[in-house]
Amino acid sequence: MPNVSFELLSVCPHTKARRGRLHTPHGIVETPFFMPVGTYGAVKTVGVEDIEAMGFQQILSNTYHLSQRPGSDLVERFGGLHKFMGWKGSILTDSGGYQVMSLSQTRVISDEGCRFKSHLDGSEVFLSPERSIEIQGELGVDISMMLDECPPYPCSKDEAARAMQRTHLWAPRNLAARRPTQAVFGIVQGGVHEDLRIESADFISSLPFDGVAIGGVSVGEPTDMQYPVVQFTAPMLPANKARYLMGVGHPKDILHAVACGVDMFDCVLPTRMARHHSLYTLQGRVNALGKKWAEHNGPHDPDSVFPATERYSAAYMRHLFKVGESLGQRLATLHNLSFYARLMFEIRDAIANGTWPELVKRYENA
Amino acid sequence: MPNVSFELLSVCPHTKARRGRLHTPHGIVETPFFMPVGTYGAVKTVGVEDIEAMGFQQILSNTYHLSQRPGSDLVERFGGLHKFMGWKGSILTDSGGYQVMSLSQTRVISDEGCRFKSHLDGSEVFLSPERSIEIQGELGVDISMMLDECPPYPCSKDEAARAMQRTHLWAPRNLAARRPTQAVFGIVQGGVHEDLRIESADFISSLPFDGVAIGGVSVGEPTDMQYPVVQFTAPMLPANKARYLMGVGHPKDILHAVACGVDMFDCVLPTRMARHHSLYTLQGRVNALGKKWAEHNGPHDPDSVFPATERYSAAYMRHLFKVGESLGQRLATLHNLSFYARLMFEIRDAIANGTWPELVKRYENA
Repeated sequence: MPNVSFELLSVCPHTKARRGRLHTPHGIVETPFFMPVGTYGAVKTVGVEDIEAMGFQQILSNTYHLSQRPGSDLVERFGGLHKFMGWKGSILTDSGGYQVMSLSQTRVISDEGCRFKSHLDGSEVFLSPERSIEIQGELGVDISMMLDECPPYPCSKDEAARAMQRTHLWAPRNLAARRPTQAVFGIVQGGVHEDLRIESADFISSLPFDGVAIGGVSVGEPTDMQYPVVQFTAPMLPANKARYLMGVGHPKDILHAVACGVDMFDCVLPTRMARHHSLYTLQGRVNALGKKWAEHNGPHDPDSVFPATERYSAAYMRHLFKVGESLGQRLATLHNLSFYARLMFEIRDAIANGTWPELVKRYENA
Repeated sequence: MPNVSFELLSVCPHTKARRGRLHTPHGIVETPFFMPVGTYGAVKTVGVEDIEAMGFQQILSNTYHLSQRPGSDLVERFGGLHKFMGWKGSILTDSGGYQVMSLSQTRVISDEGCRFKSHLDGSEVFLSPERSIEIQGELGVDISMMLDECPPYPCSKDEAARAMQRTHLWAPRNLAARRPTQAVFGIVQGGVHEDLRIESADFISSLPFDGVAIGGVSVGEPTDMQYPVVQFTAPMLPANKARYLMGVGHPKDILHAVACGVDMFDCVLPTRMARHHSLYTLQGRVNALGKKWAEHNGPHDPDSVFPATERYSAAYMRHLFKVGESLGQRLATLHNLSFYARLMFEIRDAIANGTWPELVKRYENA
């Protein structure tokens, strides 16, 4: 039996937001939570001691990238991804499907699986539900994601339906391929179409997945398309399993989704924005390279000061970016991840204490 | 009166090595010591909290680079370089002269000073003893270095003599330009020529500098030229002032110079080598990208394990360099600086405890 289960602690008196705990082989993860993205088994510019110190309990890593380098066979001989990267907390991996869609120009998808060329050396790679689950088993992570078909946005309703049907075809094959203790999350597809999402939520919820994700939401969708999908899909998912909104998002997107009953998030935004000198604050994102910071002897936002970076002024961070010191990217990454860690802490706190409206107000400009 | 003084604690029973303390406005620095190089007010890839945690008490920063970006006037308005970069320990700056020699193709040196084009925008820059000391005063560092003329290696004896004479001409002007509390170190020149070094050591020692450096040694000189210069110059320097060998070096170079009576060192080697995946160990430098580490589940050298990096295996570090994650450069930098910090700690220990021969044996392959 997989060792992953969801424990519901309380529900927000104002919204559908849930306060809970995700039990995993590498510890209890307080929900709702956000996973920093460590594509190649490393969250860019920061070490696992930094991730730990900021209070994150689960990270996401990428099956496709790790399967290319260093190879899941090597990671398995090493005793799994946790040992390989020195991370003691919990790890979730994506299925690799999204990278196949976004990195490969030459993919051929059939019911069997997906055949495409490696973005590294052009060699042929074949990814099927069985192979994806096998790789994730070799990586030894806490939570594997099923291989789904995620259609690009925008797509026609017919395309969305066909991708959903293939996802449903693949779902039981993902489950059948897992190791005895391997936890696998299902993924609901259906694009922006409520009838398809209902059909998909019903089907995926009927299978013995260890959690359920809402897929295909972040892929280029504008907010006014994304929000309704989350709003009508999340409450349809099983109440006794963790609900994961893949690839989302900005702080306000997370607040919206939590209020709809979502428990788990991942996104490259805080880390990627940091490398492009864009910092999250309660007053919105600020450009750390902006001239206004040139002599600013203090933080960018007095209400967003974090232990990992409190020694460094806005002027100094601007200087680092100006002269091209990589320490600038690191400090910005620590800042943005700290901002997300605090956001999730305050979300959990607001659900437990019934102070959701105050929280939403606090983040209205973020 | 400048607030920098040298306190001699003991002398090695086996060599001329000295155990002491350098008193500075930002704390006592145990000697002999090594200064990590923070060219632009940042030691590449690591933060001041990392430098502190490794036990360094003084760093070096570059006058020329800081004068270009962000500008010493900005740093002064900020309250000095310590506040600007968040470093609580002691700081020494070079004079900028070395960068003028190495970065500029179009310099014109006269007794007045040095006129050259900025490596950034081609604008004309003028550096004189007065201007160098003024900039360092604006940076507000603990120790300023005098502007000297450092001839490139190899050079004729006539060239070495002329550079030394100009250095001597400039020495009193450097001292005259300092602020009342600004500590300035003199620099002995003279190339590889013993008679010139004697002349220079005599002259520089006769002036009221707060410490004395041996200059012109690291600039491209092979070891068999460098060692004799250190050997006959260091003992000539005043015993009651700190002795600083600029730009040196490898661990064995430092051990040699300490045994000659040198107290202070700086070098880009540990940080630069790290960025090129070359790691210092007691068995010599190792290439972290080497295939032999691909599945190595442990450190590169079991006798060189440090708190800052002990969670990470050689296999993981190789992976980071292979996939181009900047975390690899950071971990390698932490490793190499930790190696240097330990070297200096063990040097101080060996002088105090009379165990110098054992120490030299321990580092014979490093």
